[in-house]
Amino acid sequence: MPAVTYELIKTCKQSGARLGRLHTPHGIIETPTFMPVGTQASVKGISPDELHEMNAGIILSNTYHLYMRPGHELVAEAGGLHKFMNWDRAILTDSGGFQIFSLSKLRKITEEGVHFRSHLDGSKHFISPEKAMEIENALGADIIMAFDECAPYPSTYEYTKNSMYMTTRWAERCLKSHTNTEKQSLFGIVQGGMYADLRKISARDLVAMDFPGYAIGGLSVGEPGPLMYEMLDETVPELPENKARYLMGVGSPDYLVEGAIRGIDMFDCVLPTRIGRNGTAMTSQGRLIVRDARYAHDYRPIDPECNCPACRNHTRAYIRHLLKAGEMYGLRLVALHNLHFLLNLMEQIRYAIMNDSLLDFRKEFYQKYYGTDVQ
Amino acid sequence: MPAVTYELIKTCKQSGARLGRLHTPHGIIETPTFMPVGTQASVKGISPDELHEMNAGIILSNTYHLYMRPGHELVAEAGGLHKFMNWDRAILTDSGGFQIFSLSKLRKITEEGVHFRSHLDGSKHFISPEKAMEIENALGADIIMAFDECAPYPSTYEYTKNSMYMTTRWAERCLKSHTNTEKQSLFGIVQGGMYADLRKISARDLVAMDFPGYAIGGLSVGEPGPLMYEMLDETVPELPENKARYLMGVGSPDYLVEGAIRGIDMFDCVLPTRIGRNGTAMTSQGRLIVRDARYAHDYRPIDPECNCPACRNHTRAYIRHLLKAGEMYGLRLVALHNLHFLLNLMEQIRYAIMNDSLLDFRKEFYQKYYGTDVQ
Repeated sequence: MPAVTYELIKTCKQSGARLGRLHTPHGIIETPTFMPVGTQASVKGISPDELHEMNAGIILSNTYHLYMRPGHELVAEAGGLHKFMNWDRAILTDSGGFQIFSLSKLRKITEEGVHFRSHLDGSKHFISPEKAMEIENALGADIIMAFDECAPYPSTYEYTKNSMYMTTRWAERCLKSHTNTEKQSLFGIVQGGMYADLRKISARDLVAMDFPGYAIGGLSVGEPGPLMYEMLDETVPELPENKARYLMGVGSPDYLVEGAIRGIDMFDCVLPTRIGRNGTAMTSQGRLIVRDARYAHDYRPIDPECNCPACRNHTRAYIRHLLKAGEMYGLRLVALHNLHFLLNLMEQIRYAIMNDSLLDFRKEFYQKYYGTDVQ
Repeated sequence: MPAVTYELIKTCKQSGARLGRLHTPHGIIETPTFMPVGTQASVKGISPDELHEMNAGIILSNTYHLYMRPGHELVAEAGGLHKFMNWDRAILTDSGGFQIFSLSKLRKITEEGVHFRSHLDGSKHFISPEKAMEIENALGADIIMAFDECAPYPSTYEYTKNSMYMTTRWAERCLKSHTNTEKQSLFGIVQGGMYADLRKISARDLVAMDFPGYAIGGLSVGEPGPLMYEMLDETVPELPENKARYLMGVGSPDYLVEGAIRGIDMFDCVLPTRIGRNGTAMTSQGRLIVRDARYAHDYRPIDPECNCPACRNHTRAYIRHLLKAGEMYGLRLVALHNLHFLLNLMEQIRYAIMNDSLLDFRKEFYQKYYGTDVQ
């Protein structure tokens, strides 16, 4: 029995979305779920207690960053990532692949692995599938991701095909070298860029290896939304019903709704904390640029329909003042609110699935958030 | 009856320090007390709930900063500073004098008031004693401070004398123009630099005006500690027993102990949050530079004797990692701890006064914190 298992509870009759439960060594998470991102073993400015209060059941942390600083050996010495950061619920670590390709310098990709230089100090490093497993095993997250190449968008068919096949071979090597299967479950990552046939091949080959769960990588990398939905429509049916499905790096409200409708169970994204740092809040009425001068004298909460600590305790005028004045507490409040908003959206999505009404919910939500019926 | 009154409970038989209560429209504060500084209507990174939890009874906010941004009219429109920042306990605002002299540019001091340019945008401003009262009345703090000139250290006798007499004349004008006496109490500020005779004259002249409380300004501005203690020894006996005494801008542990011994009831300082941002923590064993490499593998709390959230939940190794990685949560934790440390120190001082043992406490505390008997 793998450390992490997926239990399908029901399928929405209206939309086909899945309601389920992810069983992990650190608790049960209702799905579809959103995972706040704690890149460097901390969700920007937010305490574990605050994550508890917003009902986050699983967070994501980045292997590349933790490998660089403080180092996976140190995290292991501290008793693993849960203990290091004092988070007692579930954690997922990515494999570092995406960050190597987006952050590091002078990288050289070979069949064996990737040579690159640190974005921090320029030091030389080499990560192979085996090394990624060593690092992720040391970190000790409940769910660990296979080492993959995330091909840039756009890429040629030829490049994408070779990259996808190599990612599959790397997945096989990850599976072989991941030994701590009782406490950690390894998910495979479907690649294949924007090519439906490559996506299908990738999915089938990985499914044949029988991973405890599957991620879909390389989407939301700059392509238009409809193309992403098309890739999901081509890929998801290839994945087994009894395994969790994770759409990597996706977290805008419309993508969460559309992903759920297409059978996705897990999402993650830095969006809520990143736009929070720019003073942008997600609200039941759409995006709100709190820094905007129009809110200088606005004594309502960021979102009158929200009951997060930021909205219970503070006004737009005050939070705007904090942001303009460069006060850390302002960033903390907007990040807190945005995370709360997305976790609450996932709860609403789960409720709609339970009631077989996710398409109705989508229509209402888009009207309120985007002012339009369909994205 | 003034809005704010001081009640003397007892005097330490060993040291002469005072145990008392400050009665304000927003609660009773046990003294001696330390006031966390929320310069721009926010204590760096810390929520009002967290300030509650650490038993902060009164905080300080800066008139100059709030006048500049968001503007005192906006704060008044929001319902005053308490409501604007959602802080239901007491607040003290300084008069802006100190910041004008330390932050602004191209200032010109006249008998009428001070002309200066904003440190933010270079805009021209003029603040007189009457204007300072208008601003502080709009902000609505429980305790407001008279507009003063804080002479730089060192200053000549002649300069200090003229400045002190002008500050006294300004105090008289503040007293006349402060009308909201039922909800706000105006404290006078003793000046006089490092000249004992000037300090005495300043104190006597202000006491003759019968302020509801007195501050001692212009100390801890670069002079040696013993000189500050000498000035306190010369000044405090001039102040009435039935009024609160506030030593402005002082907050290092030794100064808090020495100030209490010399009959001071209130202190404020940016030290705990400022050194926190540099990764330095105050602990029961002295200062601890959390960023230091020696703590990379140290899995003890910052201060094993502390029960603040940072020490209950996180290790030195983790907080060091956060600070090195530039994570906001690290700054938040160290600031939280340092504030907790100083508020706890004040509680210990009050306990020692109650037991007539503050000199014994001082000896023990200095041994632990500084590794020496006397500072």
